[in-house]
Amino acid sequence: MALNPNYEQIGKTFVQQYYQLMDDSTQRPNVANFYTEQKSLMSFEGQQMMGRTKIMEKIQSLTFQKIQHIITAIDAQPTFDGGVLVAVLGQLKTDDDPPHTFNQVFILKPANDSFYVEHDCFRLALHV
Amino acid sequence: MALNPNYEQIGKTFVQQYYQLMDDSTQRPNVANFYTEQKSLMSFEGQQMMGRTKIMEKIQSLTFQKIQHIITAIDAQPTFDGGVLVAVLGQLKTDDDPPHTFNQVFILKPANDSFYVEHDCFRLALHV
Repeated sequence: MALNPNYEQIGKTFVQQYYQLMDDSTQRPNVANFYTEQKSLMSFEGQQMMGRTKIMEKIQSLTFQKIQHIITAIDAQPTFDGGVLVAVLGQLKTDDDPPHTFNQVFILKPANDSFYVEHDCFRLALHV
Repeated sequence: MALNPNYEQIGKTFVQQYYQLMDDSTQRPNVANFYTEQKSLMSFEGQQMMGRTKIMEKIQSLTFQKIQHIITAIDAQPTFDGGVLVAVLGQLKTDDDPPHTFNQVFILKPANDSFYVEHDCFRLALHV
């Protein structure tokens, strides 16, 4: 396995698909398809979870009615095992709260002509 | 190679060492030791570089006299090849400018009883 030359496109496409599902409460359960039970780890505001079931419990426990992720920047790097590191910076709007800066990091790994999320790390940035 | 149970400590120790060198202009050239010529990738505000030489050219081109990284949060996750994903959120103070929120992601890989930086991705967050 070598560096995937399409890492930029893979990263951008993933980010678009992922937040499109996340921002639609009826579609949100489908983000489960990005995670695996055995090889997916998540950190959410410092809390750690492993496996699709626990990750989805966390995601579904977020009780916002409206969520909107506005993407400011996407950085993608190819990993040496054919995966892609994706770092996202953006603004998160929930319900009628003011927007918060967030950053989220994913490591995508190839499997069956597609990619799954092996690592997911989410943080809100508190403004000074 | 399996998950390294010491990932939290490895991540924290690395972050402390890395920014201690970065924030001291006389020590800054020594961050070169964290990077390799063949297997280190950096994104800096969207600009991509590969290899220790080009990464150090970028780092040395930053002309701030005083740099201070104040760490807000460190998230670490073990990778399935014995490495560690480290996501850092903090405030960057340069010279007499107001502080900026930054996030920086590292993927550390094991080699010779130590770790090198395989991926480094830095972004400043623009405040709304």
